[in-house]
Parts: sequence; C-alpha cells; structure tokens
Amino acid sequence: MTHTLTALKGHGTENDFVVLPDLDAHLSLSPSLVRALCDRHAGLGADGVLRVVRTELATEPDVRKQAGEAEFFMDYHNADGSIAEMCGNGVRVFGWYLRQAGLIEGTTTIATRGGPKTLSFDGSNVSVDMGMASPRPERPTVRVTGLAEVFGSIAIDLPNPHVVVELDSVQDLSVLDLTQPPTVEPGLPDGQNVEFAVRTGPRRIRMRVHERGVGETRSCGTGICAAVVAVAGDSAGTDEWLVDVPGGQCRVSWRDTGEVVLSGPAVLMATVEIGADWLAEHR
Amino acid sequence: MTHTLTALKGHGTENDFVVLPDLDAHLSLSPSLVRALCDRHAGLGADGVLRVVRTELATEPDVRKQAGEAEFFMDYHNADGSIAEMCGNGVRVFGWYLRQAGLIEGTTTIATRGGPKTLSFDGSNVSVDMGMASPRPERPTVRVTGLAEVFGSIAIDLPNPHVVVELDSVQDLSVLDLTQPPTVEPGLPDGQNVEFAVRTGPRRIRMRVHERGVGETRSCGTGICAAVVAVAGDSAGTDEWLVDVPGGQCRVSWRDTGEVVLSGPAVLMATVEIGADWLAEHR
Repeated sequence: MTHTLTALKGHGTENDFVVLPDLDAHLSLSPSLVRALCDRHAGLGADGVLRVVRTELATEPDVRKQAGEAEFFMDYHNADGSIAEMCGNGVRVFGWYLRQAGLIEGTTTIATRGGPKTLSFDGSNVSVDMGMASPRPERPTVRVTGLAEVFGSIAIDLPNPHVVVELDSVQDLSVLDLTQPPTVEPGLPDGQNVEFAVRTGPRRIRMRVHERGVGETRSCGTGICAAVVAVAGDSAGTDEWLVDVPGGQCRVSWRDTGEVVLSGPAVLMATVEIGADWLAEHR
Repeated sequence: MTHTLTALKGHGTENDFVVLPDLDAHLSLSPSLVRALCDRHAGLGADGVLRVVRTELATEPDVRKQAGEAEFFMDYHNADGSIAEMCGNGVRVFGWYLRQAGLIEGTTTIATRGGPKTLSFDGSNVSVDMGMASPRPERPTVRVTGLAEVFGSIAIDLPNPHVVVELDSVQDLSVLDLTQPPTVEPGLPDGQNVEFAVRTGPRRIRMRVHERGVGETRSCGTGICAAVVAVAGDSAGTDEWLVDVPGGQCRVSWRDTGEVVLSGPAVLMATVEIGADWLAEHR
C-alpha cells in the first residue's frame, strides 16, 4: 500500500475540520479512520471530517432524493466516528473549500443529510441558510457550576434541540464552569445543547456553549443561531446580530421567509499529505 | 506574501510535534507563530515545534560550542512560544525526520540546548541517550485528588526535576485525578513533574505523569526514565524495562557508563503545506 491521501485542515470560528476531497467517491472512510484523523495527538486533530463527494455518488438514497440541483454532498463525520446530519460551521468551511478549489462560483447549494443548504460568499466570509428556528413549549430551569442562581431558559429546535439562558453580565459568563454539563430540568427528550448568552450591545451578544455529547466548544453554528433567536424574541425583525463566541465572531440574520442565516469567517490553513504507512495502519 | 511553509506532523507515544525543516535558517520563528502552529483548533495543533537547522547556523553560541560533530540542531519551542532545552520524545521524532529525509544514516548525534544527544535506530524505533539520572536528597510527601492516602516519593533530576510515587495497583493509577497538580511537600525549588508508577511485571511499570506548567500529558520522556530509575532503585542493573504510558509504550535501559537510554516509536503521519494567507496573518 503506497497511496497517500490529500486533505485540508480548516476551521470556522475555531470549530475545526479535516476536509477530504473525494469527488469520485473512491475513498472508504471507516469510523476508525475518522477517529484516527481527528485524534488531536496521534492524528491531524479536528472536531470532524468533511468528505467532499459528488451528490450523484452519495450512497444514501435520501441524500440524492432531497438534493435538488446540489452538485456536491457534505458527508459529515463527527470526531467519534459517528455520522451527523449537518454542521453550521462545517458547511461554511466546506463551501469555502469548493470556492477555493474552483469547483463553484458564487451562491451555491450543498447537499447534506439535513437537506440542501444554500451558501453565499463575501470574500472568505461564508453565509449559510440554516432553516427555520422552532420555539419549543418547554421552559426548563438550568443550574451550572460557578453560579449559585437557578436560571429560566428558552427551548428552541434548529432542528437540533437547544436551551438558551440569558445572563446579566459578561462577568457571570466568564466564571461559568462548563467542564461538567449544566443541569437542565426537565431535560429535553433528546438532550440539548445549552447556550449562555449576555447582551453586550444593541443586536449584539456574547455567548458560551455546552454541546451534548461533546462538552464546551469554541463555537457552535446552530447554538449561535438559537441564542440570537431566544434573546431577540419578538423584536427580531430582519436586522443582523453580532455574536461573539470564544473562537471568534459570527453574524445572524433572517430571510424574509423566516429562515435564519449564519455568517462568519472560514479558514483553510494548510494542505496535508497523509503518509501511506500511517494510512495503512489506521484504515 | 505568497510563500507557503512546509512542515510535518509527528508524535512519539502521542507527545506530538510540528517538525519545521529549515536547514539554512531562513525562517524567522516568532513565539506568536509557534503558538499559532500549536493551536489545536485554529492551527495544526502540537505540544511543541521542532525546527531543524544546521548546527553551524544556530544563533546561540553555547549550542555551537557544545555541539561537537552534531550536524543538526533541534531548535525546540514549547506550544506556549517559550524555548526549551530538550524533549526526550521530541528528539526521537526529530531524529526520525532526519532519517526519513535521508539527511543521516545510522547512529547520529543531535545538538540541543541541553547538550548533544546520541540517537540510534531500529526501524522507526528510536533510542536516545538521556544522560545521567541524579537522585536528590528530598523525600517529599505527595497528595493527589482521587486517592485518600498521603504518599512518600523519590526525587530525581534528569536533569529536570521529578518526583516519583510508586502506587500499589493499576486500579489506584486509573482513579487519580490529574486535572489539578498533585500537592508536593516540600516542593522542589524549581517545581517538579510528578510521576505515578505501578509495577505490572518484572522490569515493567505502568505510569501517568503531571508535567509542571502543562498538566497531565500522554507521555513524557524524562518522566518515563525517572520513574524507572526510582522504581528499579539499586536493582537497576543494565536490563531493559518496559513502560506503559497513556500514549503508548517505551523502553528504558542503561549504558555501562550509567546514562539512561529511552527507546520508543516515532511517527511522522503527514506532510503539511501551510497556506501563505494564514502565515501572513500569524507571523
């Protein structure tokens, strides 16, 4: 076995990814190879793998059926080897790769397991239409290490489940300890990501997020959108909001039709040639 | 600025490094570039950077003076941008790079800020002569979260300071909580790495390590040697010991002259071409 594998390393507000161009679907991407690539010491290190494949070659019939005109499919894998439907920062990095590689021009639609997503570009700033945010009826209470108070919250599906707590001060936000999951009562049926947000200006928030099954992350695309939807409430309108997360800054706005749009930087920092020996050992 | 930068990503028992070939010393490696390269989300991610440079071009006169015949200098930088004297796993990965690149053949001596180090190879298994271990007079007591007992210890310089605690069972070793530094009383003047070791067979130990200023790591070259020296005690002889660490397995033996030799796997997993835009932003 003498083949190497070409990949790229990139991130969107420090949500980081290994991009694997595999247009003609030659690559067999096992869960163990995904885990090895994402291993932060023995591999390249990433939150997930974005395999780039022509939609017509996607193995899942549902992906092909829903894809419409989307030429490329984002085959997204979590760092633990599991498959995920969508990733807001991931699809922005995915789009930036397509653009940099000259595979697309201008606005484009990408096939994902969560349905087609439309991207637009302003330099390396990539926007993605995230779909409709749906408020849920629950109003769970939230406790978190580092703050004595019990907080009320707003629950939102996007379509993954979120619980958003609005805090009074940046000081409160900075002392939260998210090394343990916050306690949510009652918890949502499928668990939840928990966002803590503080208003820091008109249409501007700062937030931190605990992702279910992962822990605190430096950014979460759907969490950013859910936090803005919860904090803006009925005053949302269509104006753009700024969101500061530990990994950088994103913007959230709305289409006239109500879909939430997430915008932010996408970075491809390096092209990587993975060695044949390493691959042979981890396939 | 249109230049890219070629690097490699590698590890020794999951102590991981960015190797930067810069034989002719053209590269200006600022602390901020080191931090950016080692950033695990926005960069490549590593415990440190190993810059490969011809010894005659080392900027430090002491390095050139001590180097003897060593043709190449390991210019080692910690992930935080600071400069370090030596790194046992790092120098093994450094040597493996030289070998893979065809820059050396067989046994060789590398210049480091901690003096010249001699390497030998058996496939991708790389051995390094780590020098003499010096027992210290102190016998500090050690407390660690997760175990109620107070432990005696043995203090050893190699030449960085270590405190080694021998535990009774693998079960005890597995329940240690090293997210906080163990309490060492009295602490050594310059602080210490703390190793917890369990005998798991004749001339075999399993260990975990808390490195000063870093936290728990998956492997520590000098810590592995210090733990064997402490546990072997007067029975050391020259036989080889096996050491299991979270990141893999190393071996420790002694030269007739008393120097400790660390052996273990070295892996180069990928060649990386770092983008010009990213470099321009982080130089």
